[in-house]
Amino acid sequence: MQIDNPYLMFLGDAADDLAAKVANGVAKWRPDWCKGQLRLDGCKADLGLTDMSLEEAKAAGCKTVIVGVANRGGIIPQSWLSTLEQALVMGFDVASGLHNKLSDIETLSSLAAEHGRKLFDVRHPTETFEVAKGSRRPGKRLLTVGTDCSAGKMFTSLAIEKEMRTRGMKADFRATGQTGIFIAGSGVSVDAVISDFISGATEKLCPANDADHWDVVEGQGSLFHASFAGVSLGLLHGAQPDAMVMCHEPTRTHMRGLPDFPLPSLKACIELNERMARIVNPDARVIGVSVNTSNLPKDRQDDYLAEVEKELGLPAVDAFRQGAGRLVDAL
Amino acid sequence: MQIDNPYLMFLGDAADDLAAKVANGVAKWRPDWCKGQLRLDGCKADLGLTDMSLEEAKAAGCKTVIVGVANRGGIIPQSWLSTLEQALVMGFDVASGLHNKLSDIETLSSLAAEHGRKLFDVRHPTETFEVAKGSRRPGKRLLTVGTDCSAGKMFTSLAIEKEMRTRGMKADFRATGQTGIFIAGSGVSVDAVISDFISGATEKLCPANDADHWDVVEGQGSLFHASFAGVSLGLLHGAQPDAMVMCHEPTRTHMRGLPDFPLPSLKACIELNERMARIVNPDARVIGVSVNTSNLPKDRQDDYLAEVEKELGLPAVDAFRQGAGRLVDAL
Repeated sequence: MQIDNPYLMFLGDAADDLAAKVANGVAKWRPDWCKGQLRLDGCKADLGLTDMSLEEAKAAGCKTVIVGVANRGGIIPQSWLSTLEQALVMGFDVASGLHNKLSDIETLSSLAAEHGRKLFDVRHPTETFEVAKGSRRPGKRLLTVGTDCSAGKMFTSLAIEKEMRTRGMKADFRATGQTGIFIAGSGVSVDAVISDFISGATEKLCPANDADHWDVVEGQGSLFHASFAGVSLGLLHGAQPDAMVMCHEPTRTHMRGLPDFPLPSLKACIELNERMARIVNPDARVIGVSVNTSNLPKDRQDDYLAEVEKELGLPAVDAFRQGAGRLVDAL
Repeated sequence: MQIDNPYLMFLGDAADDLAAKVANGVAKWRPDWCKGQLRLDGCKADLGLTDMSLEEAKAAGCKTVIVGVANRGGIIPQSWLSTLEQALVMGFDVASGLHNKLSDIETLSSLAAEHGRKLFDVRHPTETFEVAKGSRRPGKRLLTVGTDCSAGKMFTSLAIEKEMRTRGMKADFRATGQTGIFIAGSGVSVDAVISDFISGATEKLCPANDADHWDVVEGQGSLFHASFAGVSLGLLHGAQPDAMVMCHEPTRTHMRGLPDFPLPSLKACIELNERMARIVNPDARVIGVSVNTSNLPKDRQDDYLAEVEKELGLPAVDAFRQGAGRLVDAL
């Protein structure tokens, strides 16, 4: 899967900015690729991009229309459909992060075939994968892991890639979720892969590379999350990381979606990730901590980071406020 | 999924007994359900059952034709197809453990629809599952775990179910692989479930039950297997076991399919399974060891079991030779 850019960001009639969360992430991390936004009547979201019609986007060189917006009730309304149909006719590819597939919509799939365009349903892998081999491969890999889901793993990965590239290091962000896939232009939604192939799909995502090249792999879930730990472990083994960065949101009172489960301590979570990773890479270690401090009181944020550093003996940064420089220093 | 019995075991033109390994397992554990076998010209496998035509099987009360045989090159030959088509016309359901699906074969799916019969492709779950909740539920659960794949987890689970039922305990074997599903008449091929739902599918497989009821859940893979550990962990968390039995084959020189990976020690494997299981059930513990000693020299077998018992302080049995009595005693 390789999604061509530049992108036209399609926001439909999104009810608010939260409904366009995916599109927002793409616009933040790939401003050069996002040439404009297309908003239908009633749209309440705004990426701060130039509003464009399909014709204007074509003239601006856009190749793919990105549907980076949540739809209501899983139904794609007729008002969206006619725009997406027109886009295919005009020679755009269309990529979507929706649960329900574009390719299941008869008019879209037949127009795509007729006009030689591609439909990408990034939540639904269409590749075939092999069972993981587990053998070591050249190149370096960094994986973001977490105490919980939605703890800043994608953000941290992208901040690390950016920092590495700024320093002239060879680095590629490897996406494992829908927003990340739009940002990378490729990737695998690992939680949608058949279980047998989680690790194999991850091996394919970050294959052998130059000895001084870093794959920065977007983590998912947590080894301590009762719903998703299997995905996290399969991803950990497939990524075979040399380095891990532990991501944490310190104000959570329980694991996301699981009121009965308290968060693990950073120390326990680091130990367990290192133990499990060393099954496939004896040198694997957690080299730093990335904390989303935005929900802490302003005057607690820096103290919290200092306390974590002192307790764990690892650099602890808020990648949003401070960037990932000290994490890359630690490699 | 509920596969009706009794079964007629279809062996096609199996090249040898190994090609009919699945059918062999079913015939061993459910002799009452397996009324007969149907062998085509050239079949070299034999389950030791009465050879029957479809007509004879119908007269004997068989409800389902079980395709428990490996096919060559993934193609179902015409000679098999005509028998399976005839079976549907005569009112049998057909269940298969093949990788390629019966339901993808046009003549079979249309005949099944026409005659109101069911096709079961047990390797390919058709149910929808939810994300695991992780909350505790009534009833007791035992999960077989392993140092490696193919270390006797299904056999041990079935031996434990048999022993429990002999003692008048409430117990149900819960199948997670193709042979097990034929033996149980239901189950989920967990390695074919979408990653997000491994634990959720397992929760559905062994739901809330009477406080004194035991689900004996068939394990898969190993937390130490670089290809499949994600499946093993998702299954472990979904099963939420009170008790685990560690299965082991002591003559392996490396993990199955992974020449670079030595087997973990029993002690390390027990510790890691307990640690990971306690994320969802703080009382989880390994209560015994099941060793396949058949590849050890005869005069070493009992000594080996005694050594394991002494080292670990847990009962160690060869369930094939000795049954599972001492494992059930240990609960």
